[in-house]
Amino acid sequence: MNQTVYSLVTEGVVKDLQALLGPSAVTVDREKRAAYSKDEVPSFAFDREYLAEAVVFPRSTEDVSALMKYANDHLLPVTPRGAGTGLSGGAVPFAGGIVLSFEKMGRILELDRQNLTITVEPGVVTAEITKAAAREGLLYAGDPCSGDASYIGGNVAENAGGNKVVKYGTTGNSVLALEAVLADGTVMEFGGKRRKDATGYDFAHLIVGSEGTLAVVTKITLKLLPLPERVVDLLIPFPDVASAIDFAPRIQSEGKVIPSSLEFLDRKSIRLAERFLNTSLPCDDAGAHLIVQLEGNDPEVLADEMERIGDLCFAHGAIEVFVADNRTTRDKLWKARKCLAEAIMAFYPKYSLEDLVVPTSEIPKLLEETTRLCRKYGLEEANFGHVGDGNMHVNLLFPEERPGWHEDLEELLGELYDFTAKIGGTLSGEHGIGLKRQKYMCRVMDGAQMELIRRVKAAFDPKNILNPGKIINCPDGGNPPV
Amino acid sequence: MNQTVYSLVTEGVVKDLQALLGPSAVTVDREKRAAYSKDEVPSFAFDREYLAEAVVFPRSTEDVSALMKYANDHLLPVTPRGAGTGLSGGAVPFAGGIVLSFEKMGRILELDRQNLTITVEPGVVTAEITKAAAREGLLYAGDPCSGDASYIGGNVAENAGGNKVVKYGTTGNSVLALEAVLADGTVMEFGGKRRKDATGYDFAHLIVGSEGTLAVVTKITLKLLPLPERVVDLLIPFPDVASAIDFAPRIQSEGKVIPSSLEFLDRKSIRLAERFLNTSLPCDDAGAHLIVQLEGNDPEVLADEMERIGDLCFAHGAIEVFVADNRTTRDKLWKARKCLAEAIMAFYPKYSLEDLVVPTSEIPKLLEETTRLCRKYGLEEANFGHVGDGNMHVNLLFPEERPGWHEDLEELLGELYDFTAKIGGTLSGEHGIGLKRQKYMCRVMDGAQMELIRRVKAAFDPKNILNPGKIINCPDGGNPPV
Repeated sequence: MNQTVYSLVTEGVVKDLQALLGPSAVTVDREKRAAYSKDEVPSFAFDREYLAEAVVFPRSTEDVSALMKYANDHLLPVTPRGAGTGLSGGAVPFAGGIVLSFEKMGRILELDRQNLTITVEPGVVTAEITKAAAREGLLYAGDPCSGDASYIGGNVAENAGGNKVVKYGTTGNSVLALEAVLADGTVMEFGGKRRKDATGYDFAHLIVGSEGTLAVVTKITLKLLPLPERVVDLLIPFPDVASAIDFAPRIQSEGKVIPSSLEFLDRKSIRLAERFLNTSLPCDDAGAHLIVQLEGNDPEVLADEMERIGDLCFAHGAIEVFVADNRTTRDKLWKARKCLAEAIMAFYPKYSLEDLVVPTSEIPKLLEETTRLCRKYGLEEANFGHVGDGNMHVNLLFPEERPGWHEDLEELLGELYDFTAKIGGTLSGEHGIGLKRQKYMCRVMDGAQMELIRRVKAAFDPKNILNPGKIINCPDGGNPPV
Repeated sequence: MNQTVYSLVTEGVVKDLQALLGPSAVTVDREKRAAYSKDEVPSFAFDREYLAEAVVFPRSTEDVSALMKYANDHLLPVTPRGAGTGLSGGAVPFAGGIVLSFEKMGRILELDRQNLTITVEPGVVTAEITKAAAREGLLYAGDPCSGDASYIGGNVAENAGGNKVVKYGTTGNSVLALEAVLADGTVMEFGGKRRKDATGYDFAHLIVGSEGTLAVVTKITLKLLPLPERVVDLLIPFPDVASAIDFAPRIQSEGKVIPSSLEFLDRKSIRLAERFLNTSLPCDDAGAHLIVQLEGNDPEVLADEMERIGDLCFAHGAIEVFVADNRTTRDKLWKARKCLAEAIMAFYPKYSLEDLVVPTSEIPKLLEETTRLCRKYGLEEANFGHVGDGNMHVNLLFPEERPGWHEDLEELLGELYDFTAKIGGTLSGEHGIGLKRQKYMCRVMDGAQMELIRRVKAAFDPKNILNPGKIINCPDGGNPPV
């Protein structure tokens, strides 16, 4: 792929965009541009400010198509953006140009009871989908921690995971069909209300997780499931990290239950949640906690499973098993789990929220190495995450400002990523590469793999106008300008 | 993509291949070449004979890599081949050249109890994977009807479905990682022993179902699950097709059970199975049957579910509910279900086995239209399939030889495919496009979609040597030679 020399969003371009999308659909206001040029990755993570030259708010697929055709003809970079809850800088406009916000495309278009599907625009808040399905006795299985704020379009772009992946898979597992606009404005349908499809290449699921670099998704059809009638959450404190991690896989292998959630929190994380929420959690001096969610329709079955897992817990060193079987206690528990990223942002001046994924058997090694590295570089650590998926949010915390922190962090990350790759893991399980990790891609992929990524990117977006600088900006390869 | 002018497998080429892979790894014997140039699609489905110029039997990834590098340098088409149980002509060497058989790469490499994965070579028979997992108390969820003979490599190439998709998804849902050789011989790893991955593009699942046109898969890591301790199958006759089809989705929506199988057989299919197996099945004069498989660990839960579904059946017109809860009766039932393709091949001089997939709500319309078309063209029909997935094996049967049958069939298929597309369905749910349906791709995809397929194909295989002529040989587009 050649270096693209992009055009600037001149006054003439703004007028053209306003003529295409309507005057109120385009803004060049400095403050607004700044607000739409970031996500939840702190600006200190980047070497400089990235700023959109214009923000546009399409209201329809036709708007998106017209915009893309114009941008492609005029060599303007376009960065699609959801609710800005991303944790990888995926929606940061690396090459300037246009940020395409989906906040005016937030309609639930159809809930199909017969085919158990829901079709939505990308700007629908994830939790609204969950609620709309639940009202019909159905389950939408996507459950990212940011679900109360994130847009489904962003979930699709990053192939978001969350708390129910261990049973239901990531966002992509729920995607049946996408409508998407290619870089040149062509509107395409991929997949359909079909539970399987062996007709051509599976582009729908290639676009899922491609971080807006291949096409702009404008409509999403998701699979729904019967809503389990009962849910129960167990909070299980263990004396130390090792015993909690050792126990987690036994729920499936010995307990013969596939839980709907299987989450891990170390002591530091529990304490962070307590402080942030100004609350207290049971057994907060324990070394680590697991949250295990079970669901089903039959209260007796659920009680049986709870008992079986309870026995198993105590046989493997659990301190206690707390049962959250009503709305209040469950809400409290999950609020604690879901606030952790925010808590870190509130309490630490500098930090890096990581999203490593490894074979589940390698989690202990990953956590040991994290501890070793944090000691070496003088950092604190708070680790939590989706232990059932091998997806650990290892978080590297600077207790206070210090000179050279950025260089230390870069060095530490280099070591940590290399170690992760060595044990069969990779950079990101659910947050994506975005702007935050693109320079580390070469640590987990070789030149030939990067070249294949570039060739497929070029097949979809020959002029490299779609979210340039994401995923494929390793130092060894050409693209794009700064 | 430009037309490729391929080279011929001359004596010199054969000598080169023997030098690369060993003398016994290459054959040009006419009979062997013919045997390795077909799958289960009858030759009468094609306009001419397709014949490999050589068949090679690699023993390792290195062999495959050396072969591909040579083929790419010398412009020789290569068609990867599993066990030849395919139903779309996916392994038929359209452009001659080399057929790459995986029968010498049939080792189970590792069963990882900690990470619940199994890693295999492509030439392992699917049922051997199921057995190896079961010996460890684990489930491999792939279950194509041809599983006793098919290779896992073929299942991956076509994204095979089968009898457990309604609960566990297709082959692709079980794939965690692939090792694959690109057209130029480069060996690459995609994915890993990771339950999720948001690091770059998901090429592993793009290659799944790409019918050997993007890369040659040489190693496959599959996800395993806890093996349910108990399985029970219900055979449920209904007075007619409509009532069986109407009932099927109620198992999930009203019964609140996700069955592990949900199969449909019309009366004709039941009779075919009886005749082929020389056996009798219960209620064989019923208009249609459903097979419902339930699984679980707790006998009481299973009994509850059975009762609930039984009540639901009778409330919706079922004639009877037969319970197959021991090995013998279950084997008999599934033998009947699994023999149907073979039975048709045995009893009809000309036929077309179809693999349509539609939104589940549209199955009744699809079957009505099939009946209308069969009447119009004077054909018989036998319909069975995975009703829980909307995947219907509509089968078009010529009771006897007749002149003009081929033209009639083509016309009928054109009408049927157009109708299928109109109701939101597509050509193939699990068999693939292969050689059998490539000319019909344009009926479900427009020119821009076909062009995108061509561009991605070119990104992986610029010289178009990998299984040319499959998927993308619509009359409107350039590729490849005859």
